[in-house]
Amino acid sequence: MNKAALALLIHGGTENWSPQRWKSRFDNVCSNRRVVLLPDAGLDPTEIRYAAVWKPAPGELAAFPNLRVIFNLGAGVDALMADRSLPKVPLVRVAVSDLTARMTEYVVLHVLMHHRQEPYLRASQREKRWAPKYQWPASAISVGIMGLGTLGAHAARALTQLGFRVTGWSRSAKRIDGIECFHGAAQLDAFLQQTDILVSLLPLTPDTRHILNRDLFAKLHRTGPLGAPVLINAGRGGLQNEADILACLDDGTLGGASLDVYETEPLPPDSRFWTHPKVVLTPHNAADTDADEISKYVARQIERFESGDALENVVDATRGY
Amino acid sequence: MNKAALALLIHGGTENWSPQRWKSRFDNVCSNRRVVLLPDAGLDPTEIRYAAVWKPAPGELAAFPNLRVIFNLGAGVDALMADRSLPKVPLVRVAVSDLTARMTEYVVLHVLMHHRQEPYLRASQREKRWAPKYQWPASAISVGIMGLGTLGAHAARALTQLGFRVTGWSRSAKRIDGIECFHGAAQLDAFLQQTDILVSLLPLTPDTRHILNRDLFAKLHRTGPLGAPVLINAGRGGLQNEADILACLDDGTLGGASLDVYETEPLPPDSRFWTHPKVVLTPHNAADTDADEISKYVARQIERFESGDALENVVDATRGY
Repeated sequence: MNKAALALLIHGGTENWSPQRWKSRFDNVCSNRRVVLLPDAGLDPTEIRYAAVWKPAPGELAAFPNLRVIFNLGAGVDALMADRSLPKVPLVRVAVSDLTARMTEYVVLHVLMHHRQEPYLRASQREKRWAPKYQWPASAISVGIMGLGTLGAHAARALTQLGFRVTGWSRSAKRIDGIECFHGAAQLDAFLQQTDILVSLLPLTPDTRHILNRDLFAKLHRTGPLGAPVLINAGRGGLQNEADILACLDDGTLGGASLDVYETEPLPPDSRFWTHPKVVLTPHNAADTDADEISKYVARQIERFESGDALENVVDATRGY
Repeated sequence: MNKAALALLIHGGTENWSPQRWKSRFDNVCSNRRVVLLPDAGLDPTEIRYAAVWKPAPGELAAFPNLRVIFNLGAGVDALMADRSLPKVPLVRVAVSDLTARMTEYVVLHVLMHHRQEPYLRASQREKRWAPKYQWPASAISVGIMGLGTLGAHAARALTQLGFRVTGWSRSAKRIDGIECFHGAAQLDAFLQQTDILVSLLPLTPDTRHILNRDLFAKLHRTGPLGAPVLINAGRGGLQNEADILACLDDGTLGGASLDVYETEPLPPDSRFWTHPKVVLTPHNAADTDADEISKYVARQIERFESGDALENVVDATRGY
């Protein structure tokens, strides 16, 4: 126990996020390092050099004067960035290939569900109707991905391999082989105008809050085979204006939506998303994180840091992700 | 009109199979060749050298004594092969990349739906329950593909790219990069024992009729993350024993099924498949054929044949596919 201590601040709830299970995982992968599960009444706060956190309360991290690095146990850091008392030390996001692969599973599944008219086919089954409709090929559909980080780039490649036309949009210019990439506010309209299925994998920042709104939906491609464009949001609930999504589904501006994230989670029982026939709803489980992989990732990053190497996936405080 | 004549025998019904639309398509792609849509009262049957057919009546093709090649406008030739009066000339199956890509869309969609617990998640939505369950990664699931022709090999590659463990089984030995391939009756049990999701893309022959039965389902992997194995049949309805599928879904031998084909099509209204909560039913639309692509394919094959080149995708009469 001669290495600098790691504190765990885990405010979860579900089985996968049990604080005690995280503690035993980190004990396994942090050899000779003290791992402290908070709250711990006997702890001297000055001992803590590292913190691995999941939904810490605002101000909670400010209690550790000698903190050197914060590790967020998920990919989205918007809640942490909103904590004005957050210590000014590097904040590291999780980026493990397992999480990327899971998000691509979700994106491919939901693009295919809308492309292949699953809502219509399930309704036909319920009504015992044998009524195949014309099915266009993937090559007739343009999927536009907003957010071309690790997740967006990986999903783009998988969709391309299935035959979809794929384009992408991101804040700053990106290059991905075989994908037409747009960037910045100036190219957003051109990107939207050719998009039949819009996939949002954006981070939540002051610039992207409520970016998924009626103005944006109205610019999507309107004459594709699907009849009306489709929204898939697996980024963050704060990206979406939920009243606009419902109104646009009602008036035909959108033909369908797959939503994994919401402004309030769990989604309140009175949300119309539950019952809307054009909504395919999942309970923020698009990309579960594999706790074992993440524990190993954090342990490896700490070892890198202590041997003088650069930390990976450090959040840029000015961009917010 | 100096080239040998092509007869069209189209018994369809749906919009995509309108005989008149096929006639105009073939007129477009068969330059200088007479294209005759049957029945045609004024036709001299000895003039016909080629026939392109969709569900011809038994005996109908025997009327053309100078027939040289029969082209089937779909991938499955089981119904044709059952016609004992079929002229002993080469029978060519459709194999266009468009059809292959569409079948892979169907297979990937339905594997992902079962893998990612879609039936559970849709029920949760209907009941307004925010209740995510643990989601295993694709790498925890073994997909076994029966039938490793063009369709099976293409689907296998797409599933591998999404992270699934993929194995295959076929009548005769096949090699596909990155896929463990089993073959023949002797290796069938070993293949089944490690399969969590079974995908059937087999041709229908006397050997494969009713191969999807209780004996086979009982050999599938029983301790995978899904809880019980899943059947996906997009081959032919005659491959499946439908009473066995229902009984195995009822008693837990199977955990779910996606079916695109049935012993009787359209599926009769009193079939329990319509209402079974573990069945994801589609009306034989997994891989619609693109009529334009197929017309071009047939025209190209005739040109090859007339210039002395070998026909492609000729059915082996002894194998039956």
